[in-house]
Amino acid sequence: MATFESYLDDNKTRFEQDLCDWLKIASISTDSAYKEQVLQAAQWLHRRIDALGFHTELIETCGHPIVYGESPAIANAPTVLVYGHYDVQPPDPLDEWETPPFEPNIRGGNLYARGATDDKGQMITHLFSVEAWKKTMGDLPVQIKFLIEGEEECGSGGLYEFLAGKYDQDQPVTEKLAADIAVISDCSQYGPGQPAITYGLRGICYFELLLNGPSQDLHSGAFGGSVANPANALSKMMTALIDEQGRIQIPGFYDDVIPLTELERKQFADLNFDNDAYMKQLDVDDLSGEAGYSTLERRWARPTFDINGMWSGYQGEGAKTILPAHAGAKFSFRLVPNQDVEKITESLRTMLLQICPAGIQMELVEHHGAPGFVLPLENPYMQAASDAIEHGFGTKPVLIRSGGSIPVVNSFSSQLKIDTLLLGWGQDDDNLHSPNEKFSLADFHKGIRSSAYLWQEIAKIPT
Amino acid sequence: MATFESYLDDNKTRFEQDLCDWLKIASISTDSAYKEQVLQAAQWLHRRIDALGFHTELIETCGHPIVYGESPAIANAPTVLVYGHYDVQPPDPLDEWETPPFEPNIRGGNLYARGATDDKGQMITHLFSVEAWKKTMGDLPVQIKFLIEGEEECGSGGLYEFLAGKYDQDQPVTEKLAADIAVISDCSQYGPGQPAITYGLRGICYFELLLNGPSQDLHSGAFGGSVANPANALSKMMTALIDEQGRIQIPGFYDDVIPLTELERKQFADLNFDNDAYMKQLDVDDLSGEAGYSTLERRWARPTFDINGMWSGYQGEGAKTILPAHAGAKFSFRLVPNQDVEKITESLRTMLLQICPAGIQMELVEHHGAPGFVLPLENPYMQAASDAIEHGFGTKPVLIRSGGSIPVVNSFSSQLKIDTLLLGWGQDDDNLHSPNEKFSLADFHKGIRSSAYLWQEIAKIPT
Repeated sequence: MATFESYLDDNKTRFEQDLCDWLKIASISTDSAYKEQVLQAAQWLHRRIDALGFHTELIETCGHPIVYGESPAIANAPTVLVYGHYDVQPPDPLDEWETPPFEPNIRGGNLYARGATDDKGQMITHLFSVEAWKKTMGDLPVQIKFLIEGEEECGSGGLYEFLAGKYDQDQPVTEKLAADIAVISDCSQYGPGQPAITYGLRGICYFELLLNGPSQDLHSGAFGGSVANPANALSKMMTALIDEQGRIQIPGFYDDVIPLTELERKQFADLNFDNDAYMKQLDVDDLSGEAGYSTLERRWARPTFDINGMWSGYQGEGAKTILPAHAGAKFSFRLVPNQDVEKITESLRTMLLQICPAGIQMELVEHHGAPGFVLPLENPYMQAASDAIEHGFGTKPVLIRSGGSIPVVNSFSSQLKIDTLLLGWGQDDDNLHSPNEKFSLADFHKGIRSSAYLWQEIAKIPT
Repeated sequence: MATFESYLDDNKTRFEQDLCDWLKIASISTDSAYKEQVLQAAQWLHRRIDALGFHTELIETCGHPIVYGESPAIANAPTVLVYGHYDVQPPDPLDEWETPPFEPNIRGGNLYARGATDDKGQMITHLFSVEAWKKTMGDLPVQIKFLIEGEEECGSGGLYEFLAGKYDQDQPVTEKLAADIAVISDCSQYGPGQPAITYGLRGICYFELLLNGPSQDLHSGAFGGSVANPANALSKMMTALIDEQGRIQIPGFYDDVIPLTELERKQFADLNFDNDAYMKQLDVDDLSGEAGYSTLERRWARPTFDINGMWSGYQGEGAKTILPAHAGAKFSFRLVPNQDVEKITESLRTMLLQICPAGIQMELVEHHGAPGFVLPLENPYMQAASDAIEHGFGTKPVLIRSGGSIPVVNSFSSQLKIDTLLLGWGQDDDNLHSPNEKFSLADFHKGIRSSAYLWQEIAKIPT
């Protein structure tokens, strides 16, 4: 049994009280009326990291400050960058909360408060685990750098400027944040009693296609049949992007896809995903997607094409007999690791220009793009995390992916050249961004314990 | 030279003055603030028809009154039903009128006023032609029935109730309006100096397709690839309705189409339609439509499929990564003579249900439908009209069609079992429904003369 175990047991109530103190500060980053509280939450955290003996900074940005802290470097031991955020979502609608969002309340083993799981409650597990090490061992076995921002819920503007070097002083940000691995606890376990490591994310490329036909809406009787209809053209062009098997038709689209390994497919299959419950949850009578892949494979590890929005002509009540002058769609592709946003964008543009009907002018607008991310199963940090979580939760974590994108993971990868361990202590039904946000206190303490073991396991990895 | 010729010459100025008197009455049917003026315009017309010695009625309806008048029956001579409307469009935007809309003004040979061509100026030609006959010949050679409504610009609610028999008193409406042919002058010539008979109209069937997927918008990262996207499905279903050659893919859609005859195709071709000018007018760099047909054929005499409106998901600024819960489209088919609205509706519904993807619920809403209309080229009334127009304009009319639908023509056909002659004295650029509506005074007088000859020519047709 590790030396810090008893410390963690002895301080459970105090950890909860400390988290509650922090949760009482309404650090709603998106609402300027809460600017003072956001600052107070940052200062609270800054003091706590300072108390650990870390070198700390409260870094002013264009928005809310970044709380930074680093422990002394340890010779021949890895450095871990811990990212999180101290800001929270607005609590509306207030009248749907059973207890007030900024008056933390414990019931049924859960702590209810805005920020309980997203992300104050999850983030602070890493602070308490450091405290346990310091109080029991005197020193940490690895160097830890805390990078905790206050704008995750409103675009992370300050963080991205910081990562781009805009606030550099005595050293470049890439040097300041240099680390062997990043750790983020801002997501979920696979389910109750089943911890997980999220080892892959999908990327995205998001576009807007604008089609222009005649200079104004035309009478569909007088003109229909003589001139290309932008709405017809839009349907046709969108439909051409994907076939009946759900395979995307952009030339070269799949060229760089790293196929799922047999081991990964087996791991996904072993999760026994319940399609029926999922259909019930979404209120659909069938599932759909790329032929030949399971639901989890399609959600987590295969590319997709989805129209996100579409518009043309008359959308009001009744009938209007027009041939619309314009049509447009927003659409996006979820990408998987190794697909290249730029290559796909160029191939898409070429294809759309080829299939755009005569008499229609097209404009393709590029919105954001981000590559997918995956940690190889054999990555030593992932093994360390798996062992740590098994110690902390008493259960071996499953390896899962997520279908979405986490931009900061891409930034760490591209700007800092470090991989990220996504270690979620939460649950899917924790009501992030909704009323009655909660965090299981049992998972909170297991998270702290896992974090404490994580430093120990990572310390074993040769640098 | 016909007896009425000199009367028409002698009364030119007075005809213009009378029309101007009528045009001064702002009979804007859609705006209840003008209810009194609409009634005044009806009463004005009622008095004028009465003065011809006709039996007249001012028929109250749910909306504005119908002005009805009939001359005595003529043994062994045809009866002609003349339809028109005395109401006008609102004149907005007022500041774009060069002279006020209800102060008729003559400049450059044109009479400018709201209603100058649509339809007071065109309708009244038939009243003046009757006057000329009465003043010079004593009697008309045919029986004439005037059916002039006051709600053409706001839905014709009263007229349709009247045609359905709702206001029947001593005789059924079908008997009251019994006639051998209907005449409507509420459209245009082919071009300046080139009168025309519009002998065909397209029909229409108009639908709305609503697709419902998951019960709410989903995150396209977390869920994309696992469930059918209603916007993707909508694009696919719309695209399936038409092929690359512009041929509609609904089973049986073309079964009942009466093909254009070689004579008709030659007549269209002889009109030397200017594709380049048309492209310039519409501001497009190419024309488009069903392969194998000319522009006029495609506009006037071939069926079409046009999406009239379309919507789904996020239409605002920037990017929103959702898989939309719903998508919808309004779309319509222009039909040609002999196509059956109900048959096509049923075949469409069957097809859409077959191609609707699993996981999507569809709802197909039927808006309005109307069959196409065509007068056979050898129809004796068309020959009569052609001869009359040649007398009136000094030029043989060309035979054209129109791509739109005129519901009253369908009502006459289905409810009264009579065909309609569409004899337009206007021009395409007369600014109907726009500021500076105008009517060429030369065409006005040629229209009166043609109308006077029309009664003479029709009288020759054996009943």
